[in-house]
Formats: sequence, C-alpha cells, structure tokens
Amino acid sequence: MHAIAVDVPGGPEQMRWNEVPDPIAAPGEVLIDITATAVNRADLLQRQGHYPPPPGASPILGLECAGMIAGHGPGVSSPPLGTPIVALLSGGGYAQRVAVPVQQVMAVPSGVDLITAGAVAEVACTVWSNLAMTAHVQAEEWVLIHGGGSGVGTFAIQVARAMGAHVAVTAGSAAKLDACRELGADVCINYKEQDFVEQVIDCTGGTGPDVILDNLGAAYLERNVTALARNGRLVTIGLQGGTKAELNINTLLRKNASITCTSLRGRPISEKALICEQVQQYVWPWIAAGIVRPVIDRVLPITDAALAHALIAEGAITGKLGLAVA
Amino acid sequence: MHAIAVDVPGGPEQMRWNEVPDPIAAPGEVLIDITATAVNRADLLQRQGHYPPPPGASPILGLECAGMIAGHGPGVSSPPLGTPIVALLSGGGYAQRVAVPVQQVMAVPSGVDLITAGAVAEVACTVWSNLAMTAHVQAEEWVLIHGGGSGVGTFAIQVARAMGAHVAVTAGSAAKLDACRELGADVCINYKEQDFVEQVIDCTGGTGPDVILDNLGAAYLERNVTALARNGRLVTIGLQGGTKAELNINTLLRKNASITCTSLRGRPISEKALICEQVQQYVWPWIAAGIVRPVIDRVLPITDAALAHALIAEGAITGKLGLAVA
Repeated sequence: MHAIAVDVPGGPEQMRWNEVPDPIAAPGEVLIDITATAVNRADLLQRQGHYPPPPGASPILGLECAGMIAGHGPGVSSPPLGTPIVALLSGGGYAQRVAVPVQQVMAVPSGVDLITAGAVAEVACTVWSNLAMTAHVQAEEWVLIHGGGSGVGTFAIQVARAMGAHVAVTAGSAAKLDACRELGADVCINYKEQDFVEQVIDCTGGTGPDVILDNLGAAYLERNVTALARNGRLVTIGLQGGTKAELNINTLLRKNASITCTSLRGRPISEKALICEQVQQYVWPWIAAGIVRPVIDRVLPITDAALAHALIAEGAITGKLGLAVA
Repeated sequence: MHAIAVDVPGGPEQMRWNEVPDPIAAPGEVLIDITATAVNRADLLQRQGHYPPPPGASPILGLECAGMIAGHGPGVSSPPLGTPIVALLSGGGYAQRVAVPVQQVMAVPSGVDLITAGAVAEVACTVWSNLAMTAHVQAEEWVLIHGGGSGVGTFAIQVARAMGAHVAVTAGSAAKLDACRELGADVCINYKEQDFVEQVIDCTGGTGPDVILDNLGAAYLERNVTALARNGRLVTIGLQGGTKAELNINTLLRKNASITCTSLRGRPISEKALICEQVQQYVWPWIAAGIVRPVIDRVLPITDAALAHALIAEGAITGKLGLAVA
C-alpha cells in the first residue's frame, strides 16, 4: 500500500507518499481501507520527532480515519467486510490501510459522508472524554474553551452547549471568533487584544468558569487557576505553551479546584473502548439531530499532507483539515 | 461563657481562658453546650494570624466539638434539647458554647464517649470528603497517605482500608510508623530515612499509588506527581510545605492524572451538609462496627490549650489531641 512516510524528523517537506508494507490485523483487530483521515496537532509534533508513537503503535502519522472494514484479525468477525466505519487510531491514518483494535471502531454518525467522517473520531473522543467523563460538565455551568477555532474547540463549543452549559472561548482572530459565535459560544474573547481572565470572570458574574478546556499548558496555568470558579476543573489536553510552570497550590485549595491533564493516544484500549462506546451513545445522536456538526475547514488530498501541516502550523484553519485518501 | 481568647496573634501563650459574650443561634442554627473539642493544625495557623476565619464565622478557635443541644435558632426545632451530638464548626469550638448551622450537626457515632467524640467530626469529614467524594478511591487501589501518624492520617488509613484499598503511609518516627501499621497500613515509610517515591513505586509493583492524600503542598508536589500511577489523583489538603512549586504538566498529562486541592472550613454550608450526611451514612457504621476507631493520643483540659498547641507543633502527638471543656 501507500502511506505518508517521514524518513527524517523535520519539516513538512519530510512527508512523502511512498510504497510501504501492508499492515496485518493482529488478534482483536480489524483492517480498514481508509477513505479519509485528518490532521491533528499531535501529527506535527510527531513529524518533528517530538511525540513518538506509543509502544506497539504504527510509526505512520494519523490518529483517526474513516473507511470500510477490509479484513478481520484472529478472534474478530464483525463489523462485516465493507461496513463503513470511523476509527480512533494510535497511528497509521495517513495511509491506504490500517489495522486497529476493534474496540476503537465506531459507526459512522448518521448524515455524515465518509470524507467528513475521517475528521470526527479524534475530536469527538477528545471532547466527550474531557468535558463529560473527566470534567463532568453540568447544565448551566460555564465552560471556557481555549483555542475555540481549532478542531477540538469548534466541536467542544457545540458539545458543551448540547450539555446545557454556557460557553466562553478564546481565539486569536475575528474570523475564528465569528465562527465560534455561530457554533453557539456565548462569549468570544480575542486573546491578542483582551485579558481572558478579566473577561471570563466578568461574563460569569464574578465567579469564573466552572470548567476550562485548555490546550496551552504552562503558558496559561497561572491565569487558568486564577480564573477558575469555586469547585472549578481545569482540564489541560495540550502543551502548546510549554510543560513547566509555577502552580499556586493555595489558590487551588481556597477554591476546592482541580487540574487534570489528559491525552487520548496513550490510553489503554479498555479506556478508549469506553470512550468510543459513550461517544456513539451520546454524541452521535447529537450529530444525527443536527445539534452538533463536524466543522471541516477544507479537505486536501493525502498527497498534499505537507501543505496541510503548514496550514495548521500557521493557524490558518478553522475546525478540522481533512485528508482524502481514496 | 468562657472561651479561649487570642488577644494578639502569636505563640501558644497568647491563648487564655476568658469570659466572652455568649453566642446566639441565628436562623438555621443550633446552640451547643460543648463537652469536648480537639486541636487541628489549622488552629495553630489561626492563632498565629495566618488563617483568618471565613466571613461570618466565630473568631474563636476550634473547628469541631461534641456536646449537647442547648437551644434552637429561628426555624430550627431539632435535634431536641439535650441530645448529644458532634458538630463540624467554622470556628468557636474552644468554648463552653457554640452556635452552628444545624446541617453541620451529626449524631454521636455509636460506642464513642462524648469526650472522644469531640475529636472525630473534623477528621471524619476531611477523610471521607477527600478519599471518597473527591478521589473516588476504589477497592484494590493503592492510597499513599502523608503524615500517617496525624489525626487525619490515622483516620484515613482506616477509612481507606475499609474502602478496600491498600495503604502506604509516610511518617517521621518509628513510633508513628508502628501506630500506622497497627491501624492497617500495608507499607510504612520513614520519610527522614527513605525516598518515599522509590518506596511507594516499589511496593505498588512499579505503578505508583492511585491516590495520594497530601498535607505538604509545595514541598512534595514534584515528588507526588512523579509517584502517581496512571489515572492517579493527588489530593492536597494542607500546605505545611509551602504554597508555590513548579508543576510538570507533561508528567501529569502522560499519566492522565489530576491534582485537587481542598479545604473543609471554607466550603459553603450546602457542601458541608452533604459531607456530614455521607459521613453518618458510611463512616459512622464503620466506627460502630469497630472497623474504624478514632485515635486520641490524649485529652487535656481546655485550660491547657497552650500546652496542647505546643505538643502538636512539636509533632509529639499520634492521632488527635482532645480538649475537655466540661
């Protein structure tokens, strides 16, 4: 088969669509003929050599895909061959075929075409696992979502609203903030022009957000902790602003607040299985009902992966950037 | 009535048993004739002027008591006058009488005399709220308890064991570690002689503790985060080791781990009410059955409060130090 190979860790130009060995479905896995995948920020880090795949995972980039079941490993007999599905991957999505544990395979959400579906598994699992399973967002709570214009951000706005929460977002351009507003964000903060702490404390009537979904890590730690409401939950899912920062434990203590840091790729299959189950149970019906819609900025052919990575790195993309493999 | 007054923030010698105005039961409160109270570390900080009472709370020291119902504020008619009870206080325990919201009043656990009962409310509420309601300790998980010989520590060992968990503790003397072992601790680590991170990772077969109950704050932050298991929960309830420290967010993220910081006194009445309800539902039966027993090092007369504080400050006490008021 063909796949994107990264010979030497480095810039986007290192990615080439090459002939590589076909994957083999191990016990408990299915083989998927990939129709589409999508770019995640982690792919850029992995390409640069900063985010090595977990033990046993494919070294090929790509954390999600949509496609058709093309084979079964030992001990697996469903879904039937030819079933269209989406899958959460630990790697291997930038390819014509991939093998994945069957627990990470989900139905295609109703009303979503297979190209678009290539860009939903990762955001749906990330957003649901963090907002619902980790932060336990409640109706009428305030959720602050950093990077509201990103793939995760655009999906999280809609899921938080579907859960009955009020939503504030940060983003760095008027165009992204407009997109956030259209998706249901109640308060849109341009972090380049405004102090998000002041804004979000103001819009919540002085209490601060109950939940913060954060992709910056160190750069925002102090401000996030300052902004949090009593019983607030800061959930950090990305480290775009660095890994180490001073924590004022007393500020957290006076608020009875928490910090949880999560990543999806490194979780054991059993946890991913539970997430995929709940996503199909709770999130897919919202997509089917039109309450939540995947936001795809554009779809490029997989052979344009280098351009795709450059666009993501520039911040030029609102929502997801899909890659068509067919 | 008489109460311990602290005229000028400072050393134990500032505490004197003086005549002060009687408390008045406000709407929703009951009046308690106090039989016994107990020393908490927070009392020492408050005496020094470092832990001011929350708005509306009594300025008198004392976060818990046992005694008899002696009056009802407007809108309250039970428990009946003369009922023996224990209560969680925001202050006012070092006195002959105190007024407290009725939701913070609990039954005396079966089989516990009223002097001993003066030293159970704070540890029971602290331990249950943190191990069960915050950390959600599960059977077969490993819990690391710092300060295992303290009032909270001695109670937490037994509650964690009653929940089916394995328990490791740290303490600073052989005598305290022996006490911890007798109370059910599986692994006892002398933090003055051993590296607790190494020890606890070793005793858990390399995975680290699922839950850490921490009273040190900054001084242990890095080591606690290093020790934590995957999906681990660090719960910090004290700042004896300072308030600010560098946090490695990436370490937490790779483990899907969390840090929650809590205090009991500053919580709204509604949260304290829920904690008191659950303590009576889950913890009192363990005390009645002899599975959990309050550990009281000694009981001094309230007029010896200065000596009591000095003993706690020295680390000379294993378990709680009670103060008899009668």
